[in-house]
Amino acid sequence: MPKGHLLYAQSGGVTAVINATASAVLTAARAHKVTALWAKNGILGALREEFYDTRKLKAAEIKALAHTPGGAFGSCRFKLKSIEQDRAQYERLIDVFRAHDIRWFLYNGGNDSADTALKLSKVATELDYPLTCIGVPKTVDNDLVVTDCCPGFGSAAKYTAVSVAEAALDVAAMADTSTKVFVYEVMGRHAGWLAAAAGMAGDGEDLAPHLILFPENAFDEAAFLAKVQSVLTTVGHCVVVVSEGIRHADGRFVAEAGGKDAFGHSRLGGVGPMLAALCKDKLDVKVHWAVPDYLQRSARHLASKTDLAHAMAVGKAAVELALAGKNGVMPTIQRVSDKPYRWKIAPHPLSEIANHEKAMPKAFIRKDGFGITKACRTYLEPLIRGEAPPPYGRDGLPAFVRPSLPLLPKKLAAWSK
Amino acid sequence: MPKGHLLYAQSGGVTAVINATASAVLTAARAHKVTALWAKNGILGALREEFYDTRKLKAAEIKALAHTPGGAFGSCRFKLKSIEQDRAQYERLIDVFRAHDIRWFLYNGGNDSADTALKLSKVATELDYPLTCIGVPKTVDNDLVVTDCCPGFGSAAKYTAVSVAEAALDVAAMADTSTKVFVYEVMGRHAGWLAAAAGMAGDGEDLAPHLILFPENAFDEAAFLAKVQSVLTTVGHCVVVVSEGIRHADGRFVAEAGGKDAFGHSRLGGVGPMLAALCKDKLDVKVHWAVPDYLQRSARHLASKTDLAHAMAVGKAAVELALAGKNGVMPTIQRVSDKPYRWKIAPHPLSEIANHEKAMPKAFIRKDGFGITKACRTYLEPLIRGEAPPPYGRDGLPAFVRPSLPLLPKKLAAWSK
Repeated sequence: MPKGHLLYAQSGGVTAVINATASAVLTAARAHKVTALWAKNGILGALREEFYDTRKLKAAEIKALAHTPGGAFGSCRFKLKSIEQDRAQYERLIDVFRAHDIRWFLYNGGNDSADTALKLSKVATELDYPLTCIGVPKTVDNDLVVTDCCPGFGSAAKYTAVSVAEAALDVAAMADTSTKVFVYEVMGRHAGWLAAAAGMAGDGEDLAPHLILFPENAFDEAAFLAKVQSVLTTVGHCVVVVSEGIRHADGRFVAEAGGKDAFGHSRLGGVGPMLAALCKDKLDVKVHWAVPDYLQRSARHLASKTDLAHAMAVGKAAVELALAGKNGVMPTIQRVSDKPYRWKIAPHPLSEIANHEKAMPKAFIRKDGFGITKACRTYLEPLIRGEAPPPYGRDGLPAFVRPSLPLLPKKLAAWSK
Repeated sequence: MPKGHLLYAQSGGVTAVINATASAVLTAARAHKVTALWAKNGILGALREEFYDTRKLKAAEIKALAHTPGGAFGSCRFKLKSIEQDRAQYERLIDVFRAHDIRWFLYNGGNDSADTALKLSKVATELDYPLTCIGVPKTVDNDLVVTDCCPGFGSAAKYTAVSVAEAALDVAAMADTSTKVFVYEVMGRHAGWLAAAAGMAGDGEDLAPHLILFPENAFDEAAFLAKVQSVLTTVGHCVVVVSEGIRHADGRFVAEAGGKDAFGHSRLGGVGPMLAALCKDKLDVKVHWAVPDYLQRSARHLASKTDLAHAMAVGKAAVELALAGKNGVMPTIQRVSDKPYRWKIAPHPLSEIANHEKAMPKAFIRKDGFGITKACRTYLEPLIRGEAPPPYGRDGLPAFVRPSLPLLPKKLAAWSK
């Protein structure tokens, strides 16, 4: 039995399958007879010395985590300052780790988390504290470099493609006397990965989505309206997918300039409703819009089986890499072949992942800017393939688990930021 | 083999399971060796003499309709004028029916469609044309009287409950450093059936949804904000479900007074974003909002098994009632017992259904106005119970069918309104 404790924590926006990664981490830790602690609300739990002892979780609870969305013990949006700016907080973390004999730290998140794990591993080395730090990938934004895709993205992508396909059938049925333009807003402030996923709903000029607006392209109101009108003429209705992050040519977010609502309060974003209003006013057609927001990243009921497998594989690999002392790495997903889809897990230095952002390849966006290419379909298809529904109860709802544990007693003074 | 043709048409907003009703209608018609025609875009197809001969559909297509959302050959939002106002259009319909030897007419929709079927049956009698008219229930609004529930509602209700449960886990995980108030907007302009369905996501003070705003209650801004603040204090985050149809005490829709957006255009409704903005401004917390719009009524991937069974049963019964000459009735769903849930189909005169609207019982809304009662849960639970997922393809998408048929040749002059 290895000496010391393993600490697992979740960071950034949660996903439909991040708890599946946690489930795999805890299962692997148990298999290796390592005690795994879980930090409440990500790295904040480590700073605040708020830990759960996962040995108290039942095996059935750990298993059920694999089909439960959200983050079971909380995540956080909290970026550590640089070591130069605030060395004290890194030293605080090492103090806490030392107090709880934490020898392995697994941080499950995106870019910022990879950066945090990397910095912590450096500080630990400087302070001569034996710590192995592993970054575990997760993000619906799919914007980590090196890894072929990010756990969480495939399920959000599947949700998006299926939802657009379903809503499009509704719109097609009603268009003769009702809604003619339907606008669907997807997440993605910088890269159009989820917007692209919507393109999987249909392949062909006449099939929805008829029009995708990517954050990669500057928004051109005239070109947009002309394209919608052209689709209305040929198809009779138009399904538009828009990324929340589209910008004007001058760089401003289209959703930014919100105006006032009925209460006289500033409007929140919502580029979807904005474009719908534009079509209504300029093209004089009935419009509808949908903004699924958190639904798209928490829809465990529609998780991709491939994504779930990835999420669990990176969790298991992270424990194995940690116990093997592979400090400062991330288990990444490497695509071996498209058809048949084959993949493997390979560790990669965090130093080459942290603070980089993967953009969508230009070759994935159609030349007219309003759709995806065959290369994009080849990339996306295996990621949304396969279903992995949760078990359902007699109440008609998925049997999600809401584990509850007492916090471990603190050993240090309270953290003062 | 009975003489004459049966005509099936869809009306009003489509649902996740209205095509399942169609599938059952066509299957039953085939079993009785009756030729079934299908009108394009509902009653408009009858006025325009636009019919499909469903004998040309493959058995596999008819089967696949049962797992395909939307309306396969189009629906319509078109209310016939009264017989007194426009007798000509009723006579046109009888002319068309006579030309195509249509002896049975099945109109699949809500209140308006029941009314249309009833009026047509009266005019046919007056004109001595042998026609049996059946109203087939369908509406996510669940507002038809007599029937215990309406096909389409159960699936939208399940979608709502599951989506709120999933998003709530996301919000709970992030609340410490991110979104504290999440607002989810459901359909329902007059009755809070779908808002109530959201209540199935959790049972207990601390569980989401923490707050439901029903169209049955006048919106009270101060009481709303006080309740949100109270939930924030005790739970740490707050999930709000709001019906699109909530009104001020003076009767105006809260979503009505839209203001202007960045383009200077009138804002479309969206009471969800409006309430989120209100919480942000008054309570100074981070907010998010979701408006699933058409997704909630087209989510065949998450259909309720009970709802699907209802949808198919009314389709089959409609054909049997028609062939038995039961003119002017609707096959309704009658609840026999709650536990175990048992139900049966019973015909009821359209005259007692058309133009009535079923409100949600007062006893279904909690005394504080912000949640549902045990009686409501007892009613809703069997309706969202059971899963009936569609088959999926290798592309990761449900294998929906998009049947295509040529229109039958017209026999009359074009319809001029």
